[in-house]
Amino acid sequence: MHHTERTRLRREPQRGSHDLALIHAIVDEAPICHLGLTDVDGHPLVVPTIHARLGDILYVHGSAASRALRRLAGGIEACCTITHLDGLVVARSGFWSSMNYRSVMIFGRARLVDDPDEAMRALDAIVDHVLPGRSSEIRRPTAKEIAATKVIALPIDEASAKVRTGDPKDDPGDLGTDVWAGTVPFRVVSDPPVPAANLAPHVPVPASVRAASRR
Amino acid sequence: MHHTERTRLRREPQRGSHDLALIHAIVDEAPICHLGLTDVDGHPLVVPTIHARLGDILYVHGSAASRALRRLAGGIEACCTITHLDGLVVARSGFWSSMNYRSVMIFGRARLVDDPDEAMRALDAIVDHVLPGRSSEIRRPTAKEIAATKVIALPIDEASAKVRTGDPKDDPGDLGTDVWAGTVPFRVVSDPPVPAANLAPHVPVPASVRAASRR
Repeated sequence: MHHTERTRLRREPQRGSHDLALIHAIVDEAPICHLGLTDVDGHPLVVPTIHARLGDILYVHGSAASRALRRLAGGIEACCTITHLDGLVVARSGFWSSMNYRSVMIFGRARLVDDPDEAMRALDAIVDHVLPGRSSEIRRPTAKEIAATKVIALPIDEASAKVRTGDPKDDPGDLGTDVWAGTVPFRVVSDPPVPAANLAPHVPVPASVRAASRR
Repeated sequence: MHHTERTRLRREPQRGSHDLALIHAIVDEAPICHLGLTDVDGHPLVVPTIHARLGDILYVHGSAASRALRRLAGGIEACCTITHLDGLVVARSGFWSSMNYRSVMIFGRARLVDDPDEAMRALDAIVDHVLPGRSSEIRRPTAKEIAATKVIALPIDEASAKVRTGDPKDDPGDLGTDVWAGTVPFRVVSDPPVPAANLAPHVPVPASVRAASRR
């Protein structure tokens, strides 16, 4: 990890961290990230996309025809932001109202993965990221599918995490009032898997789908 | 609404829409957005933040000292992306595996809200966005709090929505196999409100907090 002006924690530094284990945990738990880049005109573009982490590299993938993927393949700067919204922080005033969250920002230069082995490992990791073990339950990608897909790598090097937990901070002058304060926890849960309309009834729900359920 | 090269739906156009009612519904349901901008060095920066919509304007706010807010206040281009992840799409191959989602991308030039009345309406809307009616349960912001806060407006004009629902599309050649396919629905739920440690026990949970609960 290296620290730069971009990863210096300026606002609310007590919420910030450069702890790599924390950064990895936040990245791994999130099904998707929001990937920021600049378009050909220099204007910002933020794309929601699935990701996976292998060691200190974040991978994303997409259609070889995608505008954003083609830009990233050119090796431009990116900012990948991952956010878990853990709840509402209800203060006695609007000013101190907030959210509990865990977020990560990763800055760096994107790289097109042109090594076929690395690309295959990344594609398997992306499949397994939300469905643990799924890549071994399905057939291998075909040459045509691989040709239609671009894999982009972003080093998790210039990165920081920010975490807020717990009660609202309140203005001392508001503490005596009868205004409610506290938190409302949020969670992502999954409902039971829904078989595809064209699935034969005898095919059981696989381990990967059971492992993907969130309660 | 006006349509530009940026809002033209290129990838998977059948998932795309410029329907304003759909765009508004996706914006309103999301507690937070991911706001993309370029930093002073031209590099992308993606900031997760709470927002609110009033008519055709999206408002965000933050500390007057925040780097991103100061950049946006200068009237630079922004891209606000909002994503609801509705579930996993489990195909019989990695290539056709996907996510069900509803997303919006709003492009445009940010504007610092310098009219005090508009800023106050926006701040109330941001409070009420996740806690309906909360602004009328709490005291008004103080002059000092207002001075410490910047409100930024982004017109919802150059915008598009993208929605994916339903079963995986699968390669016809994979349909005969005994590989499971279907969807795993995801939902955000809230747990019961947790009173602050310093809240007097007789203070009841207010209507705003009850209205914010998600099941």
